[in-house]
This record gives sequence, structure tokens and C-alpha cells, in this order.
Amino acid sequence: MKSQEEAQNIDIELFTEYQYSVDQLMELAGYSCAVSIAKAYPVNSLSKSGGTVLLCVGPGNNGGDGLVCARHLKMFGYQPSIFYPKRPDKPLYKNLSHQCAALDIPFLSYLPNSQLINESYNFVVDAIFGFSFKGEIRAPFGDVLKTLKEIKIPLCSIDVPSGWDIEKGNPDGVNPDFLISLTAPKKCAQHFKGKHHYLGGRFVPPDLAKKYELNLPDYPGTECCLELK
Amino acid sequence: MKSQEEAQNIDIELFTEYQYSVDQLMELAGYSCAVSIAKAYPVNSLSKSGGTVLLCVGPGNNGGDGLVCARHLKMFGYQPSIFYPKRPDKPLYKNLSHQCAALDIPFLSYLPNSQLINESYNFVVDAIFGFSFKGEIRAPFGDVLKTLKEIKIPLCSIDVPSGWDIEKGNPDGVNPDFLISLTAPKKCAQHFKGKHHYLGGRFVPPDLAKKYELNLPDYPGTECCLELK
Repeated sequence: MKSQEEAQNIDIELFTEYQYSVDQLMELAGYSCAVSIAKAYPVNSLSKSGGTVLLCVGPGNNGGDGLVCARHLKMFGYQPSIFYPKRPDKPLYKNLSHQCAALDIPFLSYLPNSQLINESYNFVVDAIFGFSFKGEIRAPFGDVLKTLKEIKIPLCSIDVPSGWDIEKGNPDGVNPDFLISLTAPKKCAQHFKGKHHYLGGRFVPPDLAKKYELNLPDYPGTECCLELK
Repeated sequence: MKSQEEAQNIDIELFTEYQYSVDQLMELAGYSCAVSIAKAYPVNSLSKSGGTVLLCVGPGNNGGDGLVCARHLKMFGYQPSIFYPKRPDKPLYKNLSHQCAALDIPFLSYLPNSQLINESYNFVVDAIFGFSFKGEIRAPFGDVLKTLKEIKIPLCSIDVPSGWDIEKGNPDGVNPDFLISLTAPKKCAQHFKGKHHYLGGRFVPPDLAKKYELNLPDYPGTECCLELK
């Protein structure tokens, strides 16, 4: 279980010491999220036909992971829709959005209320805030998280349940059924009470895992994710 | 089966119309190569202990796919070594090389002779030339291909057997046991007589597949590659 500072330092090392590009790691991270989701909620097992999924996407890298995840979910046969209210003016995010739009993934201009979400989608993916979240929740994400607290269908959080303190969690916050920890679980994961906890992002060099004492389980075979027990 | 011109046009559209980055698609392509290899030659089935593999890497994008493939093979438990005699002075290739070196993947300063290769490695991956290859083979790759024609252990070619004409093949060229077509098979694949033919690179938008009449088979579930019969 990693502190916020450790998670940030691991991230910095991946980009500086190991010279990965954001594009590369975001692609692998988002892909592993889509594969984890497909294991927990296989498209053929969903009650609402068409495999509808709603992704709520935040303004930073966690949101980028969500956009990549949406694209791969579409390739896997799901019907994702994206709510992406704050879009940074950077080529990476613009391109990731464009790739989704070019795959006919609709972008919603507003977030439906919880009842409509319950009726329209099989589950919701929370890709709003990641491990660098700190401090106040800015508009419109306070309202978004309020809606996500009300929904009855499963909520899947990427890396960190949005609005949770990275170390202490948030007893009054969202309550995901499914958490996908990327690289390594953050300390707040010990407060996660949902059904499924996956680990994704199989790209941490062994030397880095050792240095930060990540004690990661072995991924089986060629799997890009695994369920933590 | 795609002509050279069609393959080039599909590539151009992926980068311009769909705004993928080279980093993204190379990561997905190289990853699908590593997964294909792990299906055809599982690390636990290899006769030479340690899972040794030699990757011969060319100066362009095919070589980049090879570098990504090497990194994922290492994550899957193989022991890759890389021969990369012509390294372009571009950040992408430098970073991909650095990532391999940081994972303790050795770079060979010369190509061993065929007998030494047979004794030291379980199989060889040919990531020298891809679908844009045309014309004369420049040094030192003529000698490299001569050695790869002599080896007795399996040869696995990424996208195109190196030195083959993209459409007509090359009866006097290398004779891979294993071919991984990326995006879609090129016309020369009809001259491939080896054991395994995989398709990888599950990132072609359906509209693009339709426009170029790729008639790709459906990838099962979340698989990033599939064996073509």
C-alpha cells in the first residue's frame, strides 16, 4: 500500500529514469482497466442489452486512462458513453478524445440524474481523480460525485475512488463495487469494501518495484491485470 | 491481403484521421507480438532454460515494434537479447532502447554466427523491415538476413519476413516458422509456409476496416491477437 508521495515518486521515475512516455503508460494502464472490467463484468453477462457503460472522466491523467479504457471497451463489444466536462487544452487529451469520437463513442453534454443512469447503463466507470488528487473538489465534480454516490448500478473506480483522500479514504465519499489499482494499490485501498479489487498496469520494472518495496504479486502468463484477494 | 500502398495508406489514416500517436500504436503492436509469441512458444515449453530469445531489430518502425515486444517478453519471463545495429537518432527509439536496457535486456555489439545462435537461443525474432520496405537491403542487414536464413531454430517475423517484397514475397529470402501480421496481412503472407500465422494490432477502427475491405476476423473476448487458419 503506497502513500501519495510514494505513488508520485514512482510516477516521476517511470517518466524520468525509465523514459516512458505518457502516451505509452496511459495506453497500457487504460487497456488493463478495460481488460479488468471485462473480467468482472463480461459483456455477455450484462442485464441491459447493448453493453452500455457510462465513463465519467476527469481533467487529468486519471481521465486520460478513462478515455483509453473507453476505446478498448468499445473494441471489446461494449457500448461506452463518456461524460467529460473539463477538457484540458493539450494534444494528448484532444487526441484521446478524438480517437473515441472516431469510434462513434458518444460524449454526453450533461450528466443524467442517478435514476436515468440506473435505467440506461449497466455500470459506471469513475475516471475522475487519480493518485495526485488533493484538497478541494472543484465544480462540476462535486455534483458529479454526489450523483455517483446515489446510483444503484455498480461503480468501478480507476486507481482511486474519486474524492477519497489517497491515504485515509473518505467514509462520506463514493462507494465503488470495483477498484482497479494501477501500478500498486494506494493506502486508501484498505478502506475499499467492494466486491472486486484488480491490479493493472503491468509495466513496473522489477528494480523500481524493489526500491519502493511494492511487493506486487506475480501477474500470471501474459495477463495485464489480476484480481487481488 | 493488403498491397504495400494500401498498408501505407491505412497507416497514414491512423495517424492523421484518427490521431493516434506512434507511441500508442507501437506499444499496442509490440505488446500483441509478445502475446502472440507467448502463445506459440510458451516460456515453460522452451528447450533452452532461461527462455532465451534473440531479437534482430531494424532502423524503422518495425524495429520499434521489436523493442516494445522485447520489453513485454521480459515482463512475461523470457530472457531477450537485442541486436540493434542501426539506431535512429530520434527520441522515440532512444527511449524504447533505454526502457529495454533499464530492464537489464542486453544489447549485442555483433550478431553471433548461426551455430552460436542455434546453441544460445530458443528462437529468433525478425523485427528488421516492415511494410514500407522497398529496394536494396543496406549493410549490415544483408549479412544479418544471410545468417537468419542459416539458423535451425525457429524464426518469427513481425509483420513481414524481412527482405521479402511486400506483395510478391521472396523465394530466396528468410523462411520464418511464425509470422505476426499487424493490422492486416500483407499480400506476401500468401507465400508464408510456416507453422503459425497470427494477427495482432487490435486497434483498427471498424470504419477504417470497412473502407479498406480488410475483412478482419473477430478477435475473441479481450484478446489482442488471434491465430489465422
